[in-house]
Amino acid sequence: MEKIKVGIVGYGNLGKGVQYALSQSEDMEAVAVFTRRDPKSVRTVLPVAVDAVENIQNYVGKIDVMILCGGSATDLPVQSVETIRDFNTVDSFDTHAKVPQYFEALDEAGKRSGKLGAMSIGWDPGLFSLARIYFGSVAPDGNTYTFWGKGVSQGHSDAIRRIEGVKDAKQYTVPVESALAKVRGCENPVFTPRQMHTRVCYVVAEDGADLARIEQEIKTMPNYFADYDTEVHFVSQAELNEKHGGMPHGGFVLRSCKSANDNDFLLELSLKLESNPEFTSGVLVAYARAVARMNREGISGAVTAFDIAPKYLSPLPFDEQRKKLL
Amino acid sequence: MEKIKVGIVGYGNLGKGVQYALSQSEDMEAVAVFTRRDPKSVRTVLPVAVDAVENIQNYVGKIDVMILCGGSATDLPVQSVETIRDFNTVDSFDTHAKVPQYFEALDEAGKRSGKLGAMSIGWDPGLFSLARIYFGSVAPDGNTYTFWGKGVSQGHSDAIRRIEGVKDAKQYTVPVESALAKVRGCENPVFTPRQMHTRVCYVVAEDGADLARIEQEIKTMPNYFADYDTEVHFVSQAELNEKHGGMPHGGFVLRSCKSANDNDFLLELSLKLESNPEFTSGVLVAYARAVARMNREGISGAVTAFDIAPKYLSPLPFDEQRKKLL
Repeated sequence: MEKIKVGIVGYGNLGKGVQYALSQSEDMEAVAVFTRRDPKSVRTVLPVAVDAVENIQNYVGKIDVMILCGGSATDLPVQSVETIRDFNTVDSFDTHAKVPQYFEALDEAGKRSGKLGAMSIGWDPGLFSLARIYFGSVAPDGNTYTFWGKGVSQGHSDAIRRIEGVKDAKQYTVPVESALAKVRGCENPVFTPRQMHTRVCYVVAEDGADLARIEQEIKTMPNYFADYDTEVHFVSQAELNEKHGGMPHGGFVLRSCKSANDNDFLLELSLKLESNPEFTSGVLVAYARAVARMNREGISGAVTAFDIAPKYLSPLPFDEQRKKLL
Repeated sequence: MEKIKVGIVGYGNLGKGVQYALSQSEDMEAVAVFTRRDPKSVRTVLPVAVDAVENIQNYVGKIDVMILCGGSATDLPVQSVETIRDFNTVDSFDTHAKVPQYFEALDEAGKRSGKLGAMSIGWDPGLFSLARIYFGSVAPDGNTYTFWGKGVSQGHSDAIRRIEGVKDAKQYTVPVESALAKVRGCENPVFTPRQMHTRVCYVVAEDGADLARIEQEIKTMPNYFADYDTEVHFVSQAELNEKHGGMPHGGFVLRSCKSANDNDFLLELSLKLESNPEFTSGVLVAYARAVARMNREGISGAVTAFDIAPKYLSPLPFDEQRKKLL
């Protein structure tokens, strides 16, 4: 059987992860990486062609799916609707408030071109969204809780780095153990943000910076930190690099619910990931397989994980799936 | 919007659970229970019509989906292909070795009648199957482990009851904690059955029965107990009823895997259920909703959980799903 041909658009941590993930899928192959940088300056983690993103149209007919590895804020809203004119796409769009308008734009562009775009793919949104819809559908009387961490939040780390006097920083989101225990005990608690997550920051200050002011600015930062118990630890750049250089993440989706006959059910999905971008990439690659197959069946427009039957994700033939996995 | 009309075929623990579960779904309603017993002798947990299973054809056009609540050994293989001639169906067929032939028969009968049948729905097969296919697809380099319990196994309890001198019995399947810990530690162990599960039996013996012989017969029973460490506790009927009267169950699907860049991922789904049949029923009802919707879109034949996009399971409109659950 012919391999599914994949292009990687953008080559940061996620793009690298996608290339690694493709190397684990025998039915797929990485055809090219597309970059806005000088292609000659890009060193890939495994051998693959690198081309300028302007040349992407030269690959029409040569690539089945483009995995878009840009950011949600500015890259994806533009890139996705442009790319779907010529290719199927998969992306990890995660700006929650803009999901409806993003979906509509992608759906319209895809229906026009006859291509399919899977959006908001990864683990949250993605696998965690799946847990929320499956759990809530099979056990409708209850509460769903999402906890993140322990893991590095890129957005929060960036927010700290923007503070004057900060050279570098890493922020860990940490679920509150006692809150998890309450949910697992089927107590159906109602939480404030502070009761669910703690924020732990490792900060490298510039020489002579006012540490007390930096700590105060972090702890009072609206949206990011003000609503949480926040720990600030000042460390050297060497210590930050050595002890906090990774990008681990993970979390929990729990549903605590009751049957109409008053029996308790507790459903839990948990992920523990040594590398957030490399795991997200694996999800993107599985959905790239699904998108290629579904588009061959004539499906176009925009889809999320909710619209994709699990059978399309697995490389096993459908009858083998039933024999081995059911 | 018109409610999805459901019939319940068979009224044991599962049938009762389905009726309870339907009472939690505002978009669905239980129209009738069908029984092989004298309908007048059946007392339902909530008010609903009870009719003889021979009269089921009187409900053509009045019921959208029949949820088949019989056993996998003898009831379902006959019932499913008969019922799908006139109705969409959902069942919890779980005889793993016979899945391929069951699927084919149901698929053929459904394609002929234009109806849709969802088979092997519940939590295992069902939600656990979904974990196995999703986890394996997004993280292909690793091992998947399924642990069951702590919970009552009906099949094992029945097997004990067939031993001479046994009046009653309950068997708990218990996962071995140290085995779970090894998997969670990403050690990728290879297990014998004995290393994964322990079997704990509570047995009521007849007066004057030879307890040593009963214990020996249980512990050496092939397939059921011989390959496991088995504990046998003799108790009074009163104690069995009081302490072991429930039908709790649950379990774990774990996947321990690696990225091509050598980072570890641990994925885990766990269920803790105070009532196995009532939870299974909730899954059947969600898939009944899916089957009704998919059949309206023109889909017929046989499907498993692998073939059904999650969007069909939730009563929320698709755009609301994206807003609230993605």
